[in-house]
Amino acid sequence: MENLENSADCKETVSPLNNSGSTVNSPVPCHDGKAVGFVLVHAGAGYHSESKAKEYKHVCKRACQRAVDRLRAGGLALEAVTAALMELEDSPFTNAGTGSNLNLSGEIECDASIMDGKSLNYGAVGALSGIKNPVLVARRLLSETQKGKLSAGRIPPCFLVGKGAEQWAISHGIPACPTEKMTTKFSLSGYKRNKRKMELAEQVETKRKRQSCGHENDFGGLEPVGDIMVDGEENNSACLDTVGAVVVDREGNVASAVSSGGLAMKHPGRVGQAAHYGCGCWAENARDVSLYSTAVSTSGSGEHLIRTMLARECSTAMQAENAHQALLEAMQNKFISSPFLAGEDCVLGGVIVLRCCTCGEAQRSEDIQALLVEFLWSHTTESMCVGYMSAQDSKARTHISRLPPGAVAGQSLAIEGGVCRLGTVSD
Amino acid sequence: MENLENSADCKETVSPLNNSGSTVNSPVPCHDGKAVGFVLVHAGAGYHSESKAKEYKHVCKRACQRAVDRLRAGGLALEAVTAALMELEDSPFTNAGTGSNLNLSGEIECDASIMDGKSLNYGAVGALSGIKNPVLVARRLLSETQKGKLSAGRIPPCFLVGKGAEQWAISHGIPACPTEKMTTKFSLSGYKRNKRKMELAEQVETKRKRQSCGHENDFGGLEPVGDIMVDGEENNSACLDTVGAVVVDREGNVASAVSSGGLAMKHPGRVGQAAHYGCGCWAENARDVSLYSTAVSTSGSGEHLIRTMLARECSTAMQAENAHQALLEAMQNKFISSPFLAGEDCVLGGVIVLRCCTCGEAQRSEDIQALLVEFLWSHTTESMCVGYMSAQDSKARTHISRLPPGAVAGQSLAIEGGVCRLGTVSD
Repeated sequence: MENLENSADCKETVSPLNNSGSTVNSPVPCHDGKAVGFVLVHAGAGYHSESKAKEYKHVCKRACQRAVDRLRAGGLALEAVTAALMELEDSPFTNAGTGSNLNLSGEIECDASIMDGKSLNYGAVGALSGIKNPVLVARRLLSETQKGKLSAGRIPPCFLVGKGAEQWAISHGIPACPTEKMTTKFSLSGYKRNKRKMELAEQVETKRKRQSCGHENDFGGLEPVGDIMVDGEENNSACLDTVGAVVVDREGNVASAVSSGGLAMKHPGRVGQAAHYGCGCWAENARDVSLYSTAVSTSGSGEHLIRTMLARECSTAMQAENAHQALLEAMQNKFISSPFLAGEDCVLGGVIVLRCCTCGEAQRSEDIQALLVEFLWSHTTESMCVGYMSAQDSKARTHISRLPPGAVAGQSLAIEGGVCRLGTVSD
Repeated sequence: MENLENSADCKETVSPLNNSGSTVNSPVPCHDGKAVGFVLVHAGAGYHSESKAKEYKHVCKRACQRAVDRLRAGGLALEAVTAALMELEDSPFTNAGTGSNLNLSGEIECDASIMDGKSLNYGAVGALSGIKNPVLVARRLLSETQKGKLSAGRIPPCFLVGKGAEQWAISHGIPACPTEKMTTKFSLSGYKRNKRKMELAEQVETKRKRQSCGHENDFGGLEPVGDIMVDGEENNSACLDTVGAVVVDREGNVASAVSSGGLAMKHPGRVGQAAHYGCGCWAENARDVSLYSTAVSTSGSGEHLIRTMLARECSTAMQAENAHQALLEAMQNKFISSPFLAGEDCVLGGVIVLRCCTCGEAQRSEDIQALLVEFLWSHTTESMCVGYMSAQDSKARTHISRLPPGAVAGQSLAIEGGVCRLGTVSD
């Protein structure tokens, strides 16, 4: 284990960039060092209360550490991103794996997906119950597709849902986990509170309709914030949103993953962006037509992220010269002002993005392994919790990014990031 | 009911276009007439035997008629496309709804999705059992999202799977249908035959492995062709593939839909392209940045269509000037030679495409309703069965498109189509 200084820095100076209330950080170059990769994780775009900030950050820190441990041990991006996701899923504070939101029937149904930028392979599970780490099943599906066809020439599945997904996981050696073990006192008390409030809201709505008003509107103390429901006074105990990670390894391969317990009080069988190809995560290594390797993981209101295919859109945008500007424009034009969400006045989501290349200042003949890594996050939700770490760092940095004062969630955005150069020690 | 001549024509002259064995038809303009829309349907890209050609064509004909009936009655594209899909699902010969392929457990699990080019709304169901018309559930999900939020501000789902989807459908007034009623003698005998052959293949594979060969390969008489499994001698009784339709209505709105029973002997819970946003169907009305309204529906090997996001890719390509050339290039570069399928030597799929505009020769001041409709299909499978009809036609035209002699399925493509001008009677 190396004990070097942090090589990735993120300036948090907030400077208004346009009239949508966005904030942008200038990338801050970091110094070189022996490096085998970089990880950026998120613990959701939503609302992160000050009082629980420590826990959110701690989860992200541990997830970064797990990924870096894998990278240092010689693991590639796909292994590292899986390790980060498992840590994020295992935390009772995140809305993924253990501690996931409960659905209308009081059950846990998880979505997760993973993508490998090298092979462009993909695996996903939706509405999966009874498995502690949904990302592990997605990962296994991805691996199985790489092995070629099944018996009698059948094409292996890349997306499994529900009971079938659970059975497949168990038959592939992933142990079952009773729902009770994945339910926390937070998720259970949140469910009971939400259920009471929903019933109350429905009673009042029915009453309103009877009084011939007929006008349906949001009601009561429940508000969907990202994939979570937060009730005014009790934000502190609200579950966090979707979690995710993006990684680049020593070979310059990228990988991404995402995992979510989904919307609180969702209908059983509802599948959100975390299990949707192109919506929850995306990873593509650089190739002839694309200069940069890119990896993206999203969080927020699942239906908005699906209909805008945000992960893939952001990845595509990242081929432009200026990463900050490209992400800002993608979030503005492909998300907040997307024609696919024309009827929505409140578009909630967030992304983490990694892009890297061996170009520019890193392209030196004596150091062909040098990688320039740009890492960014952007969100239209009140806040987004992120963590990041280079393999030469002694510990991860974490940050809760917030919309600037006065900015309206769902209509404005924040964007921040940094730059890290991963070089071989030779220089 | 009007009794005019067919206004849409499709030249079936086959002329080699490039070395991949593709065939292209020149669009043939059709005469004007009182028109309220146009529909193009498919009964799958896969293998359609000559002996059953009549049945395949008959299904497509009826589906076109249902759509045109809706258009003539004043229905919009979304209603018409739903009507076409229900007819296709109800046929025992198609692999959708009644007559769907059975999965490994001998059950029917259907995928379906629908998209409205006007609102850009979308609805999908995956691994749905016990509902006669899966497209009806997808359509209802789409409608519900248009009604705004649920009680207590919850965002309505656009994608439901499994048991939850079935329960949602029933609670929204869509009647349950016992699996036995949707199982046909064809699907059942196909299942039994495939199961026997699979068991045999697995026995031989195990034996081979024991003999330390360790080399896994396709085996036996089963071959995946598109989403179907066909066994050499018994092609005649094989189920057809995914079905779909694309429609343009009198207002120039487009809509698309797709429905599938999925891969024969698939793992329970496997979801294919028919329930994947951007992969199974796509529809986008013309707007500021896009000159043409486009609608696409795909068929074939689900995992290939998912990973290439073929429906959306073809829709995007359709903004180029030459529709035939654009589709040819999309099928070649974004499908057969896609980097997302780099490891695949046999890429099986097909698309139907509609694009229309009020531009060009149709843009005349005295006839602002005139619409130029280009309709195309392309496939890399042995064959693809399509039907099409304009609202002024007395009956639909149907066609089984086949790869040219000597072309290799999965590596070559066929592309055909036509042009139809829908004008008001004034001229």
